[in-house]
Parts: sequence; structure tokens; C-alpha cells
Amino acid sequence: MAASASSLLAAAASSSCAAISPRLPRGAQAAASVPSPSRHSCASLRASPARLHRSRFVASASVAPAMQPPAESRVSTVVDVDLGDRSYPIYIGAGLLDEPDLLQRHVHGKRVLVVTNTTVAPLYLDKVTWALTHNNPNVSVESVILPDGEKYKDMGTMMKVFDKAVESRLDRRCTFVALGGGVIGDMCGFAASAFLRGVNFIQIPTTLMAQVDSSVGGKTGINHPNGKNLIGAFYQPQCVLIDTDTLNTLPDRELASGIAEVVKYGLIRDAPFFEWQEKNMSALLAREPSALAYAIKRSCENKAEVVAQDEKESGLRATLNLGHTFAHAIETGAGYGAWLHGEAVAAGTVMAADMSHRLGWIDESIKKRVVDILEQAKLPITPPETMTVEKFESIMAVDKKVADGLLRLILLKGPLGSCVFTGEYDRKALDETLHAFCNN
Amino acid sequence: MAASASSLLAAAASSSCAAISPRLPRGAQAAASVPSPSRHSCASLRASPARLHRSRFVASASVAPAMQPPAESRVSTVVDVDLGDRSYPIYIGAGLLDEPDLLQRHVHGKRVLVVTNTTVAPLYLDKVTWALTHNNPNVSVESVILPDGEKYKDMGTMMKVFDKAVESRLDRRCTFVALGGGVIGDMCGFAASAFLRGVNFIQIPTTLMAQVDSSVGGKTGINHPNGKNLIGAFYQPQCVLIDTDTLNTLPDRELASGIAEVVKYGLIRDAPFFEWQEKNMSALLAREPSALAYAIKRSCENKAEVVAQDEKESGLRATLNLGHTFAHAIETGAGYGAWLHGEAVAAGTVMAADMSHRLGWIDESIKKRVVDILEQAKLPITPPETMTVEKFESIMAVDKKVADGLLRLILLKGPLGSCVFTGEYDRKALDETLHAFCNN
Repeated sequence: MAASASSLLAAAASSSCAAISPRLPRGAQAAASVPSPSRHSCASLRASPARLHRSRFVASASVAPAMQPPAESRVSTVVDVDLGDRSYPIYIGAGLLDEPDLLQRHVHGKRVLVVTNTTVAPLYLDKVTWALTHNNPNVSVESVILPDGEKYKDMGTMMKVFDKAVESRLDRRCTFVALGGGVIGDMCGFAASAFLRGVNFIQIPTTLMAQVDSSVGGKTGINHPNGKNLIGAFYQPQCVLIDTDTLNTLPDRELASGIAEVVKYGLIRDAPFFEWQEKNMSALLAREPSALAYAIKRSCENKAEVVAQDEKESGLRATLNLGHTFAHAIETGAGYGAWLHGEAVAAGTVMAADMSHRLGWIDESIKKRVVDILEQAKLPITPPETMTVEKFESIMAVDKKVADGLLRLILLKGPLGSCVFTGEYDRKALDETLHAFCNN
Repeated sequence: MAASASSLLAAAASSSCAAISPRLPRGAQAAASVPSPSRHSCASLRASPARLHRSRFVASASVAPAMQPPAESRVSTVVDVDLGDRSYPIYIGAGLLDEPDLLQRHVHGKRVLVVTNTTVAPLYLDKVTWALTHNNPNVSVESVILPDGEKYKDMGTMMKVFDKAVESRLDRRCTFVALGGGVIGDMCGFAASAFLRGVNFIQIPTTLMAQVDSSVGGKTGINHPNGKNLIGAFYQPQCVLIDTDTLNTLPDRELASGIAEVVKYGLIRDAPFFEWQEKNMSALLAREPSALAYAIKRSCENKAEVVAQDEKESGLRATLNLGHTFAHAIETGAGYGAWLHGEAVAAGTVMAADMSHRLGWIDESIKKRVVDILEQAKLPITPPETMTVEKFESIMAVDKKVADGLLRLILLKGPLGSCVFTGEYDRKALDETLHAFCNN
């Protein structure tokens, strides 16, 4: 599904502060150069729910003149994840945490447990607590602050969430809120799925990685010492609230990590989006708000469309794991947290492209564009030196995509934006790729 | 929903070895005195799938003359749990573990992990392994043997299941088999729900408690140090296989524990079944096969009917927890494993009946019949002396049925076989009951 240049542009515009800058120059590239209002000038405004405009998986021209909001309102973008009675909205916009209504309408019951970490808590916990309780005296908020990092995404750390929930005597009508990056979202979501056999939860992702990928689609879980995300649940949130202002505090390395997943969407199913990224990578790295907002929106739309068609990953959804089998092996092999997830995904994506090219499934030019865009994003394009062929093989053998002993992979095939999920490939190509990327 | 005496009888007959004893005298009481063939004379026979006859939640006369099987076949009872695409059968019969076909048709993939405990493994692990692999060389079986007892129903013990699964490199196409009582079924089911975000699983319950209650309906989970079953998932098995021969090795105390749940079904929704139990309790305690088979079948039918209407316990299903709020407090307060679950349920049921009577919701005669039948089953009718009012109150405050701070209870109301699930009761009655049953 490709979006036209003009629809891409409109989509980008919808994520900026339309009250001040509702009209944009034509041309896809312009999306990155849209003059954006200061996010702080937006921050005190309140969105009227009616002003939220929704896109259902397609980038559509949705800022019609009649919808120009009054000065005191803000327009956010809403991407719907269509899963029947488990459908939910993804709100995307600057300053959304300054809008208590948006969050409060998705809180069930009177008790909230915010799950966050030592890095994010000092930055946003007070703000989120305010947003949950402002003009809402019936709601009480508890919080649990976990250590930060992939290496803490384990059963022991998740038990702290249960301990806090039990100690606070939370009941089935409570709501868990994940405030942080992918590790917090995955752990809080899994804890929400299991506490009292399931309570409501809300995702407030604060990293680009979580905003474009992990907070959407209901995959939750923790790591096993011998493999990433081997224990978890499919469990959908009530909503995902993406306040793009939270990216202001994100370290550069974390930003680049998120971009690896943005690149993925282009490669597996959205060639125009990939081409847009090639032209706008410097704007993304410079954190131009409209470029980031567009990249987030388009990523969420791609993910929502895939998840709506294949929630439990019986096929299509697996394509979202391009490069991830190699990446999980890197993360597990190098020690959780040594590399950021997106860094491992970048190297894994290059390996998948290399293998696809060895199989004769893609032109060399595509492989080169993959390497180029990831290098431009300052992401690694080879695995760490400590990874050996044996290490890759041994860890990949417990990958979730192994079925009856056969390792299935997502590989690029055909023109840009096309991929396959298959166990039918020449094993020699995999061996060659592993040997080409490892020292032994 | 009440079953007629003749249909009750036919239902009882259907669980015995119909190849040898297809016809039975009339009258509900006769169900317990049906001459049963030696189970060992049945054990080497094989059931033809076509001969399994199914009941959909109602006890129906299903052994028609035309269905009399040939000598080399066995008739088992099948109760269907109707949950759309997650529907599954409960097979009930003597010697079902001697029928590999029955089990094998529900195994997905080529790899099986049997989860059992140190008590059950020496008795049935070889038999189950044989049933899984007989004439089925493509399947390989791993097993993990956990320590036995409620006190091990925790995260640390469940991790051993994940460790074994990862170490054995099981993939999404594997099947977990729970072989044991309620603790094993709950832990194995939760592990199956979470391993790789969900793999197939089969329940082979070997205690009466698990056969009449915990193995059916998809409630899985583990205990938190401060509360029973606070962490878990709703996750349905592929099938439940109840070989009533496994009750031959069950200690008397465990048998009585299961009877507490059988009594529950009568009290909450099936007066004729309760009356049947009053007349046949001695047959149940003497382990008369046809009486046990009938009690298991009727219990499964009641449970299946409730679960089909309310899988996730939004209302009706909670009624299956008659006495359980008190019981969970006893189990948690006395220390997991000090009392068997059914023992705690028995005392809790008496407390619920007492409170119902104080509220004026049931006649004294019903309360007396509750006490009498549980005493006849040699079950406790008061909590342990260590339980104080404060202990009850503090533990019940974290019960899963608390909603927005209000403790909802299942209480008897009206004629025998009627109950309500409500938070609207005079708190004084609860206080009086607690004080009447505690020393302080």
C-alpha cells in the first residue's frame, strides 16, 4: 500500500500544531521542512476530542479547511488499531500530556499504577500523575519505578510490579500505565495481562523506538536468560498516547535506535516511505518536529494495518521482524543492554539484505540503499565482534519463528518495499551471510 | 438447569464401561450402585472415536441401543466446552490413558513437554509418554518434574518450566501437557499461555479436584506470596483427558478435597445433583467407579455451561467461587499447602451459607444440609484456629472479586441450587460470620 506524495504531506501536517500552522507547501520533502511552532507554545492548549482527526491505516488528506480548529485547540493525529472489540486509538501529537482529558477517558476504575523507570520518572512521572488526576479527584495514582535497561526486562523485575499492585490492593477495575520505552511497555503490558488475569492498561511511550513500534500491537513480554521475549502475551492496551515532546529528552543514540524500525517499515511494505526517509534522514536526526511526527504517524499506520490483519502473528505480522532474528541473537549474545534494540536491528537488517541478495531475491542496489540509509542514521551495519557463527546459530535455534525445527526468516524479495516470511531458502546463503559478518 | 432422574442415570452409565455393562437399572440412586466392570478388564481396549458420545452441558440419555459398541471398543463420555474457535472436549472414562489415539489427535507439532510433579511422575509419566508416542515415532517427549504442593505454585517454580522449554529448544508448534492436580494444571497452563506468547496445551488431571474443577475452563495462574492466583491468564486447553483410573492412587484426603467442589455445583445451580450427592456420598467416598464418573461428568457439564456463557468472569462465572473468598484467605493465611484447596473451600462454603442465612436469604434447613453433607465427606466446616477476623479481612481485601474497593461475594439466596454474586449485602452479616467462625 503506497501513499501518494500529497497524502503523505497532509499526513505529516496533521501531526504538527495545526492551530498555528494548518497549511503546508506541497511536496513530500516539504514535510520535513515545515516550520513548526514551538511545542511549548502548544503545551498549555487543550484539544477538543472532536478536533482529533483519525486515519484508518492510510495516510489521508485530513486537514480540510472546515476542520481548522479555533486558537485554543490543538489537532492531534489519531491512528486506529482495528481489532474488533479490542480496537484502540493511537494519539500522536506535541504536548498531549498537557491534555488530561485524552488520558482520563481511557482510565478504567479509580486506581492507576504507573510503571516507569529511574530515567523517565524524574522527567515525566509528575506530569503524567497530574494528567491522570487533574480535575479528577476520584482517581488515585500509585507508581513503581524500575531500574532502566534491557537487562532488567526479566521475571524478577516484573515481580516488583506485582508486589506493588498487591501491596496497593489494586483490583480488577484498575489501570496500569506504561511510561517509558520498549522495555517498560513490554513488561508493564505483560504484568497487566497477568495481574488478576488481566487489567486495563495504557501505553505512554517516551522513546522513538516505543512510539514507532513496541507500544503498538499488543506484543508484551520479558526476556529469558537464553532468549529475547520468550515469555509474554498478546495483550492490547486501551490506547497509546504519544507525546512527541518527550523526544526532546531522548539521547541521540536512542533516537537512532528508533529510526532502525522506521526504516524497516519502508523496506518491508512502504517504498514511498523509504524514499521519503532517504530524503529526510538529516531532518529526522536533527529532530525536526514535523519530520519526526510524520515518521511516527506513518510507522504507526503501517504497524496498525499489519496487526489488524494478523494480531497473533500467524503469518503477515512476522514480516515486522525483518532483521530481528539476527538482532535478537546479537542482543542475547552480546548481553542484554550492551546494544540498543534498534542498533541490533540495524545490523540484523543489513544481514537480512545481504542474505536476500545472495539468494538472488533483490538487486544489489537495494542492498546498498539499506546500508546507506542505516549508515546515514549512524547505526551499526555489522554485528559486534564478539558474535561468532556458532553463537548466532545456537541462539537463533530458539527464535520464536522456528517451527518444527525449521528457522523461518523475513527476507527482502522483489522491488523495494517487498518481503517474504519463509523457511524455504538455500541454507548455504544463511551460512555465507553469517561467515561474511563474523570473524570466525 | 435441572436434569431428570432418568437422564442423570444415563449420564452415570455413560461413564462406565458400556461395552460390558450398557444397560442400567432405573432410578438416580442406582447410579452409585451400578455394577461396574473391573477397570483393568477395560484397560487394554481401544475406543473408536466414533463411539465417543458427547453431551453439550446437559445430562442426556445417550446410550441408545443402536450405539452399543462392539466388544473391542470402549465408550467414554465427552463434555464439550463451547467457546467458539477455542472450544474443546473433556473426555471422561476409565483407562483413557491406554488409548493413544485420544491424546495424540490433540497434540500439535512434533514436540511435547509434560509438566508434572514428584508424586505423579512415578505413577503416570511413563504411561503418558507411551500414550503420546505409541505408533507415533515423529513425536518426542520432554518432561519437567516440579516439587509437589500448593506452596510451590509460584513464579520461581514456573520458571523451571520455561527453563526446560528453552533448553529443549521447543518452538511455537509444541504442546505442553499438564499431568497432575490443580497446581500442576494451573502452572502448566499459565506457562503455556506465556511461552513464546502462547503454545498448545492439554490437561490430564489426576486428582478429583482437578477433574471436576480446575482443569476445565481455562483459568490458569500462580500464587503471589500475599494472595492466591493473583497472577495468571485465561487460556484454554486443546482438550481435557480425565482417566478416572488415576483416582485409584489418590489419597483419601485429596478425594474429599475434590468433593468440596462437587458439592459447590449442587449448591449454586443444580439442586438435583446436590440431592443425588446427599444420597450417594458414601458411594463417592468408597470410590465406586460409576458414582465417581457420574459426579465428574455432572460437575464438568455444570462448569462447561457456566464457562461457555462467561469465559472471562464478568459475572456468572464468579458464582463458581462460592466459599472461595473465605477459602483463599484460609489458604493464604494458614500458609499455602497447610490445608488442601477443597478443605478450605468446605469451610468457606459453610461460612458463605452461614452469612446467607444471617442475611435472611436462605432457610436454616439449607444451611444445615450444607454442614451435613460436608461433614459426611469428612471435610472441615470451620477455618483453622489460627485464622483471626483481622487476617480474614486483610487477605480478602486483595481478592480478585474486589471492584473499586467493594468486596463482592457469592452467597446462597432462595431455594436450594440458587445463588447470587453481589457486593450489596449488609456488612454486619459478614462481620458476624467472621466473628462466629474465629476465636477473636
